[in-house]
Amino acid sequence: MNYADQNKKALNAATPELEKTYKDLTLLNIQIDMTRGKPSTEQLDLADALLAGIDREDCFGADGTDYRNYGLGTGIKEAKTLFAEFLGVAENEVIIGGNASLTLMYDILVGGMLFGMPGGLGPWSAEGPVKFLCPAPGYDRHFAICERLGIEMIAIDMDENGPDIDQVEGHVANDASVKGIWCVPKYSNPTGATYSDEVVDRLAKMPTAAKDFRIIWDNAYAYHHLGKGPATVKNILDVCKKVGTPERPLLIGSTSKISFAGSGIAVMGGSVTNIKDAAEKISYATIGADKINQIRHIKFFHDMNGLKAHMDKHAEIVAPKFAAVERILNDRLGGKGIATWSKPEGGYFVSLDVTDGCAKEVVRLAGEAGVKMTGAGVTFPYSIDPRDRNIRIAPTLPPIEEIEHAMDVLSGCIELACVRKLTNEAS
Amino acid sequence: MNYADQNKKALNAATPELEKTYKDLTLLNIQIDMTRGKPSTEQLDLADALLAGIDREDCFGADGTDYRNYGLGTGIKEAKTLFAEFLGVAENEVIIGGNASLTLMYDILVGGMLFGMPGGLGPWSAEGPVKFLCPAPGYDRHFAICERLGIEMIAIDMDENGPDIDQVEGHVANDASVKGIWCVPKYSNPTGATYSDEVVDRLAKMPTAAKDFRIIWDNAYAYHHLGKGPATVKNILDVCKKVGTPERPLLIGSTSKISFAGSGIAVMGGSVTNIKDAAEKISYATIGADKINQIRHIKFFHDMNGLKAHMDKHAEIVAPKFAAVERILNDRLGGKGIATWSKPEGGYFVSLDVTDGCAKEVVRLAGEAGVKMTGAGVTFPYSIDPRDRNIRIAPTLPPIEEIEHAMDVLSGCIELACVRKLTNEAS
Repeated sequence: MNYADQNKKALNAATPELEKTYKDLTLLNIQIDMTRGKPSTEQLDLADALLAGIDREDCFGADGTDYRNYGLGTGIKEAKTLFAEFLGVAENEVIIGGNASLTLMYDILVGGMLFGMPGGLGPWSAEGPVKFLCPAPGYDRHFAICERLGIEMIAIDMDENGPDIDQVEGHVANDASVKGIWCVPKYSNPTGATYSDEVVDRLAKMPTAAKDFRIIWDNAYAYHHLGKGPATVKNILDVCKKVGTPERPLLIGSTSKISFAGSGIAVMGGSVTNIKDAAEKISYATIGADKINQIRHIKFFHDMNGLKAHMDKHAEIVAPKFAAVERILNDRLGGKGIATWSKPEGGYFVSLDVTDGCAKEVVRLAGEAGVKMTGAGVTFPYSIDPRDRNIRIAPTLPPIEEIEHAMDVLSGCIELACVRKLTNEAS
Repeated sequence: MNYADQNKKALNAATPELEKTYKDLTLLNIQIDMTRGKPSTEQLDLADALLAGIDREDCFGADGTDYRNYGLGTGIKEAKTLFAEFLGVAENEVIIGGNASLTLMYDILVGGMLFGMPGGLGPWSAEGPVKFLCPAPGYDRHFAICERLGIEMIAIDMDENGPDIDQVEGHVANDASVKGIWCVPKYSNPTGATYSDEVVDRLAKMPTAAKDFRIIWDNAYAYHHLGKGPATVKNILDVCKKVGTPERPLLIGSTSKISFAGSGIAVMGGSVTNIKDAAEKISYATIGADKINQIRHIKFFHDMNGLKAHMDKHAEIVAPKFAAVERILNDRLGGKGIATWSKPEGGYFVSLDVTDGCAKEVVRLAGEAGVKMTGAGVTFPYSIDPRDRNIRIAPTLPPIEEIEHAMDVLSGCIELACVRKLTNEAS
């Protein structure tokens, strides 16, 4: 039954069974956490060779530099070689960070606010209000950084090609207070969208009123496919160089969801000008990231072929979980006119849209039935989903049986909440 | 000959031989770097067991938490146990950071500027000019953070008991823009002074106009003695709690000069209020420090007895280098009235004071003779040594033969520069 086509009478008639189904679900007394975009134990096990010992001789660079000591604030040569290729930049266009790309991005925005960016007029905070474009739904921690720093967020609609580029161009053309945009260009968090060539091209060449406008290119899922091999996204730095905006993109990546989530390596790429600026900024705060961990990662991956082969193993573990989400949502909600969802080919999330005005209620009902979902709205700036319809599903962490169970519960909650809503609004 | 007692004629007579000695030194064509407060290869070798493998089972906490994954933003339980004792605080009064205490301190000051501190009126930067007390000579990187953030530095004289506490009390009593003080309480960088009980007590209880005044208690050399076992400094947090200023101190430490300089563990301690505040601040920027490295350190040290025994081994390596500095300076400059120097019982530096107005010239002469010394003045706020007399010697890194050689050269440079200066001023 497509609920959206029904009149009030039909919807009323359908409700008691949905309520009984939901009540039965609450009696099962389950506890499943579907909130966390974390790798599972099996995924982490893939990298256990990182726990193995390394030799003293591994700790010395080709020039004799002792990597156990202070120094090399932007990373060891061997790591730059690997991660330059990882990001698609040159070796002098990369900085090896610590274990969190979030730190790199936080520091970029703090640095912009306090000290400014190459090409700009000085500290952003001295120019008055600062704004950032936030394709939404998006990554809640991106938005939290903006909110924390008092950067005004402007939501941009997302579609299957990335952010609505007309909207983006409209905001940046005449407003110099718009200093940047958050982008997750591949398997975007949470919609799974991969940016089209046109979107990348237009992001690179669009005129911006701010001379120090920055694209935070958080390619968090660059190699995180679900079996078909990673999708291709145009190299933003290459495009920007070609169209004369080499300072515009700051590329971010990490191995958090490749090696160990808490002990990976985060990296930043960009033009030599930007890398020099970033290196100078971080020099006040650090003596450089952990070089021994860099060595361990080099010995583990060897090269990009090794890293890509490793990600194929991740795909084998993760793909069936995404398939389970798709299967059950389709079985339970397909054709009912109350929910649509993404069918990503990579990344860590499924993005689910329910009937407008129902997301919060669905999450509440699911919680009462023992299935913890990410809070509705958190994937939007200021945690406000204007249509209260989006729910983020994180299938990687729980075992497949729990995912199936949770999707079953979630489907029941969606049916109940949406049909109640439609009933109220129907004539 | 005590040059300070001589008349112009005697000084003039002494100069040619000093010039010849210096010229001979420049002809030796040596290259020695005495600038870096870095551990030597032999010291790093002491920690090579950190390179050994650990087992998968080591990666799980007692409650089953998988330390390879995200989570535990303030550190694993086992690390908190060790480093709480390391800092002399309770387990809920500690945050385990990344590999650099510098990052913790930078973040403390950035956090104060942007968001404020518990007990205060909000962001420091919103209150107008912000000032920090800087006992000097001190640690150049402390001062660089202040300068970077536009925090006005007020130099405080150092003596053998720590900062001149009368000066400190005078500055903080009525000026609410004085928000903090840098302290290296044990084997201070570079003078080697260890704070007396009276200084600690008065720092804790002095009335401060700023309600959110903070002592950055950078106990960088807490266990870094030269053979007699580490000196004792009163526990600043205990004292502050007793006198009703529990939020005043922020304790900082690290294993950078204990395990591996580039891959150690930095820690922060303080009242529960301060720790909660700091944890909230860093939650925007990090998913927590590398927990696998925390495990490695726990397995290496086991406990504080293990760590202290490890530091005794460092002392065996480092002490002869400090002794060489003392021996040669004493042989070459003792009784000549142109130089005094510290005789530290721990830490990483010897602080040398030459005739007023001569430090820059000594460093220049030494550089021309192939001995690179830390730039004169860098141990003072804004790199200005008002008496141009202080030179920092870092004896840990070079082999002992190089240290002896370098001190010989430095002594020749000091004699030449100071005698020239005294000659100009003599009657």
